[in-house]
Amino acid sequence: MFAPLINDTFIKACWRQATAHTPVWLMRQAGRYLPEYCATRARAGSFMGLATNVDHATEVTLQPLERYPLDAAILFSDILTVPDAMGLGLSFALGEGPRFEKTVRDEQSVAALHVPDMNKLKYVFDAVTSIRHALKGRVPLIGFSGSPWTLACYMVEGAGSDDYRRVKELLYSRSDLMHRLLSVNADAVALYLNTQILAGAQAVMIFDSWGGVLADGAFQTYSMAYTQRVLSQLIKTHEGVPIPRIVFTKGGGLWLDEMKNLDCEVLGLDWSVNLARARQQVAGPVGGPGKALQGNLDPNVLFAPENIIEQEVIKVLESFGAPHRDLNTPGPTHIFNLGHGISQYTPPDHVSTLVQTVHQHSRAMRAKK
Amino acid sequence: MFAPLINDTFIKACWRQATAHTPVWLMRQAGRYLPEYCATRARAGSFMGLATNVDHATEVTLQPLERYPLDAAILFSDILTVPDAMGLGLSFALGEGPRFEKTVRDEQSVAALHVPDMNKLKYVFDAVTSIRHALKGRVPLIGFSGSPWTLACYMVEGAGSDDYRRVKELLYSRSDLMHRLLSVNADAVALYLNTQILAGAQAVMIFDSWGGVLADGAFQTYSMAYTQRVLSQLIKTHEGVPIPRIVFTKGGGLWLDEMKNLDCEVLGLDWSVNLARARQQVAGPVGGPGKALQGNLDPNVLFAPENIIEQEVIKVLESFGAPHRDLNTPGPTHIFNLGHGISQYTPPDHVSTLVQTVHQHSRAMRAKK
Repeated sequence: MFAPLINDTFIKACWRQATAHTPVWLMRQAGRYLPEYCATRARAGSFMGLATNVDHATEVTLQPLERYPLDAAILFSDILTVPDAMGLGLSFALGEGPRFEKTVRDEQSVAALHVPDMNKLKYVFDAVTSIRHALKGRVPLIGFSGSPWTLACYMVEGAGSDDYRRVKELLYSRSDLMHRLLSVNADAVALYLNTQILAGAQAVMIFDSWGGVLADGAFQTYSMAYTQRVLSQLIKTHEGVPIPRIVFTKGGGLWLDEMKNLDCEVLGLDWSVNLARARQQVAGPVGGPGKALQGNLDPNVLFAPENIIEQEVIKVLESFGAPHRDLNTPGPTHIFNLGHGISQYTPPDHVSTLVQTVHQHSRAMRAKK
Repeated sequence: MFAPLINDTFIKACWRQATAHTPVWLMRQAGRYLPEYCATRARAGSFMGLATNVDHATEVTLQPLERYPLDAAILFSDILTVPDAMGLGLSFALGEGPRFEKTVRDEQSVAALHVPDMNKLKYVFDAVTSIRHALKGRVPLIGFSGSPWTLACYMVEGAGSDDYRRVKELLYSRSDLMHRLLSVNADAVALYLNTQILAGAQAVMIFDSWGGVLADGAFQTYSMAYTQRVLSQLIKTHEGVPIPRIVFTKGGGLWLDEMKNLDCEVLGLDWSVNLARARQQVAGPVGGPGKALQGNLDPNVLFAPENIIEQEVIKVLESFGAPHRDLNTPGPTHIFNLGHGISQYTPPDHVSTLVQTVHQHSRAMRAKK
């Protein structure tokens, strides 16, 4: 049905297999820093107009691949499509973050929540299939969703927040309601990701963007446990091909020793994490079990001159250290990424420097004895 | 000159000495959640009107002590008084955060920065002395400042930020300018804190509110090193009394192994940190060296019903575990606090529950064999 995969570097690294270079892609790589994205968005009229139109979503997903030799594509969509399909009414005012028309803050609104009919998200699955065809096997396509906890933050707050007061009030005051809300979210996210896999996604990523705002103890109970509930329901293979799963908790560096027990292949890391230490904690030995690591350059490095971008990219690569080179057994691998989404103010040329430096320097690292 | 200290529980715990109960105070304890504070602020006309008037500052500092049996008072002021005295023009629009009239983003504006004349901050030192008198030795008075890096964030951004784009751009593009800016800040903060000590502050705290936004590596170079530059210049004793020093880096939990080498007595922790693990890392053994730990309840717990506040306070106390009880030697101690400033929406009665639970339960913990 789809063309065979040509550049499998990203997929191999997910499975801790040796690769000739360190694969690289960027969170939010199809986005506002690209003038061609802004042009398509202007034609679409709005963010949701862009995300819900299969042709537009396909076009913008491929835009960064035309500019840069990235090793993966990621579905153009939003982390909040699932609660939108639950009937909460997602919108994006120009220059602002996402906003829900309805919020979920009491017994009645939690009781009314159900796993949505996946037909309401058909535009996402159609986009996945369309992008897979358009990619012609150049690089793999990553599907994604927000984590149950991250979705809950927006569903309760109704928008972004700087203190998470309402969602934490619900968590601490009515943990029963929070557990019910998170259970529905987890089952909905699992079904959503599985349907993306059936539509053509070759890897899936769970964005726990707000896991790091929780207290120690609360994170394990209200975020990590429900991420695991999603993972435990995911399809392991599709048409005989195994599907790697990535979990990214922004601000989750303190909990890596616990996150290494998640049933996933890759952990995404933000820039506060020391990659050498994380490698020791979770990347595992050659021939033994472990998880691939993805990350973790501060996106703000991309505002520096190109020679400094090169230096900082090399620092990240060297901090992880030499990836293993044994073709016959899995071992520690690194997938280069930013520690968070790329800024809309990033000069596009600076991204070229980043990608080129990752490829060149990671090849040079492998060439060393 | 000042009355002798009656309740020395907080000071003893700073020095890792055994106490009959775990001392408790709350960051931003004199603040908008108290109706009496709002009344005084209304009379003062503005936040800076409040902070720069000795009588008002004294009045609001003591307000929470009238309501709750807190074990320390903290000077009512703002973390940004120092750059204001450098001529940047601090203001607080109603319902918004702090804002500077001038920003520091280029060679010229960095070159123009100097350690300010402490006469411009006389209102702060006068307030310290006035509060010390008004306290009549009931509890010790903590002085404070923002850290060099945290001040730099506001000086470069001009206000709060959600991505720290401008300050990080300067850091990565012109690290020479950033080092010069941070050096001036560090020397200014040291002089500022020393002058607070001379005016009557019995402990000092450095708020590194934005240290946690830095990448691993950058934190050590641009935040921690300049916090250490402040600490190395601080007066160790005043009139024969040693002055304990507290460092609080929000989001700094990943760097505790490095922060334990800071020349200070206490480390403040936010709620993402596991206190039992932090105790093992930095609190040291009975009879050996170490640092006292301060923290770390999520302020949002105070929106829950009182029985849940009790449970969560007890969880924090039990997570640290039994403080040592040997009166003859220092050992691990805990100072109870929130993991960040108290929310303006907190019901004042809930704070009573918190303080009472800390005192009662920590006494009960010490009574156990």
